[in-house]
Amino acid sequence: MKITSVKGTNDYLPNEVEIRDYLQERILSVYKENGFEHIITPAIEDIENLDKSDGGENLNLIFKIMKRGDKLDKALASGVTAANENELADMGLRYDLTLPLSRYYANNKDKLTLPMKCIQIDRVYRAERPQKGRLREFIQCDIDIIGSESTDSEIELILTTTKALDAIGLKNYKVKLNDRRLLRAVLQSFGFAENDLDSVCITFDKMDKIGLTGVVEELTEKGFAKDAVDNFEKFLSEGDFTLESLKSRLEDKTPAESLEHIIDTVNELTGNAFELVFDLSLVRGQGYYTGTVFEVESIDFKGAVAGGGRYDHLIGKFLNEDIPAVGFSIGFERIFGILMNNGISIEQRADKIAVVYEDGQLKDAVKAADALRAQGKIASLYIKPKKLGKFLNKLEERGYDGFLNVGVSEEVSMFEK
Amino acid sequence: MKITSVKGTNDYLPNEVEIRDYLQERILSVYKENGFEHIITPAIEDIENLDKSDGGENLNLIFKIMKRGDKLDKALASGVTAANENELADMGLRYDLTLPLSRYYANNKDKLTLPMKCIQIDRVYRAERPQKGRLREFIQCDIDIIGSESTDSEIELILTTTKALDAIGLKNYKVKLNDRRLLRAVLQSFGFAENDLDSVCITFDKMDKIGLTGVVEELTEKGFAKDAVDNFEKFLSEGDFTLESLKSRLEDKTPAESLEHIIDTVNELTGNAFELVFDLSLVRGQGYYTGTVFEVESIDFKGAVAGGGRYDHLIGKFLNEDIPAVGFSIGFERIFGILMNNGISIEQRADKIAVVYEDGQLKDAVKAADALRAQGKIASLYIKPKKLGKFLNKLEERGYDGFLNVGVSEEVSMFEK
Repeated sequence: MKITSVKGTNDYLPNEVEIRDYLQERILSVYKENGFEHIITPAIEDIENLDKSDGGENLNLIFKIMKRGDKLDKALASGVTAANENELADMGLRYDLTLPLSRYYANNKDKLTLPMKCIQIDRVYRAERPQKGRLREFIQCDIDIIGSESTDSEIELILTTTKALDAIGLKNYKVKLNDRRLLRAVLQSFGFAENDLDSVCITFDKMDKIGLTGVVEELTEKGFAKDAVDNFEKFLSEGDFTLESLKSRLEDKTPAESLEHIIDTVNELTGNAFELVFDLSLVRGQGYYTGTVFEVESIDFKGAVAGGGRYDHLIGKFLNEDIPAVGFSIGFERIFGILMNNGISIEQRADKIAVVYEDGQLKDAVKAADALRAQGKIASLYIKPKKLGKFLNKLEERGYDGFLNVGVSEEVSMFEK
Repeated sequence: MKITSVKGTNDYLPNEVEIRDYLQERILSVYKENGFEHIITPAIEDIENLDKSDGGENLNLIFKIMKRGDKLDKALASGVTAANENELADMGLRYDLTLPLSRYYANNKDKLTLPMKCIQIDRVYRAERPQKGRLREFIQCDIDIIGSESTDSEIELILTTTKALDAIGLKNYKVKLNDRRLLRAVLQSFGFAENDLDSVCITFDKMDKIGLTGVVEELTEKGFAKDAVDNFEKFLSEGDFTLESLKSRLEDKTPAESLEHIIDTVNELTGNAFELVFDLSLVRGQGYYTGTVFEVESIDFKGAVAGGGRYDHLIGKFLNEDIPAVGFSIGFERIFGILMNNGISIEQRADKIAVVYEDGQLKDAVKAADALRAQGKIASLYIKPKKLGKFLNKLEERGYDGFLNVGVSEEVSMFEK
């Protein structure tokens, strides 16, 4: 039997879970206070829903669940090869919380009222090649607003997400914004064909990793028109990327104006509490985004800790009509990593007391422990081991605050800090 | 795209999740107060660990995750048939929390101190044939004590589990106890061979469903010695099933005495707060149980709502040495079902206020909502729809307590109850 957890998954120790629970409880509590409601969707989804979901690169990272019994036998008997391997699977593990939410809305719309503001804090799965920091099972903390086209929704999501980050003590972050419509219009102005825009975006998204030269090389390799690539290169090396300048170039001012409105309103409401910037190079991977996209970047950590955007056509894949929707997701694992590294202390933690007793004296010990619990303390029973001092030292290391030696003392002895 | 959730899984609506969160929080809180520590294990496990885990019938209910990329291609190229379908999978979804816990202990034992008392409240998966009430994705709430052979552990688990059930308002239950060693000794005394005992137990477990005649028929069909089956039938139809009587029949009095000790101690400590009875027919499905087994039965619901037992050899499958362990698991879904049917109210719920505002007045609305939040209320922003009255009625139905009409009134209007 293998004793390690499956690659890309973690066993969490009690002290880690104490902090994970605390952080998730704080995030959930801020989300709820701001009027979002907690919902739960299953971690397994129909394989076709996942496959057809416009999830971008994530579609290559789906863990597929094998059919069972007769259905599996039938598929195997029909001769499955690498070309039609999907015949073997009927379900898969979700790669995000947005696709299940879209299905959830379609499934339950008669019991829900629009606009619907909801929370999901839950596990998602991606079959990443295990490498440093890339988990295959991880937690996302999402809020979404379904049923409103107003940019008020974007503003609410930014305000609520940053409140949650503040509540858990994440400092020094900036919020970056873009609009898919604006980015596409800019790219089209260089001469890229409409059908190629998604592919151009995917390459452009790598700008911070592969640099301008890398982007130009990849676009050329992909075989796009030389004129378009040249125009784009010129723009990237000399251009003015401010929202103002881009707005003046474009015929349709709507996306730029909507970004300006979001930025101005959030800055006014928060008193410029954090940096909030337009960033043309912000793409976000998912294919389902249709308008605003946003990301929170930790300045200390140099990486995204939250991301999201507007996906006005995803729910329409489940229904005959489009329903506008926008969401913002905190990537819990990165934040957990940052806060664990920086050190974090939990407010108002109950005292943890070990109640040690001689074998045979359980009844007295239970009574003593229940008395401590009635005072709001955590009390854990232990039969006295031979080496009591050594055992108590270990418990102290593990976060206990004191002990009660039943039959020897009536008072709790607190460990020295 | 399919809009329903995968068979045997549920989408949970906001009012359901509010209650699920409340119940889980109460259970977790009782567990913690009693000195158990929350840990987290992954929902996916190595397929071999699952297959070799002595999980009884559950081994037929594992959702298997397909290999990916080259490994899958290789498996497919080698010609997989129904006979070796496991070649296609490298992982699976856990069917319980005990197997992952045993692996967890083996993996992390250098960072843990024995005895270790831990909590898991998490999802498990079983590929049940979907039928009424049988979920394929469901929550279990487990506590376990690893590293102690003392029956004090059994007593602690019973005390803590019943405290948790009391805390969530489950009334009218009884706790049933048995010991695998005692059951095996009784069966052996009728002439069944040691190797057949597990199989006899599985049939005996169905006594309440198929009756005495059904049990005798099935044992005969299984081809066990006629003498043994006859002896067993005679015992079942005429026998005295009291612990006292069985103890007098058996040479090894240890299992019976340990059950007597558990029953007497728990009764004394709780002042006979609930019925606690020996039940020879209590088997519990898992193959890994080695000693005490227990179950909580809801008298109103006529079904098990919690179960568990001692599994002294399961951790030994991961390590070179056996480590004694015992656990008790609350089946969350049944309890959620019972309490939802009976009606449940949440203590100290924060007021939920809808803050409605004219389109364009977001800034005023945010300020008003933040003021309510600072008073500990939940405040949710909504642009005023054309039919405000109808919209507010819907929100009231959905559990809102009042509304604030920004720009029209400075005061919250509470809905009439």
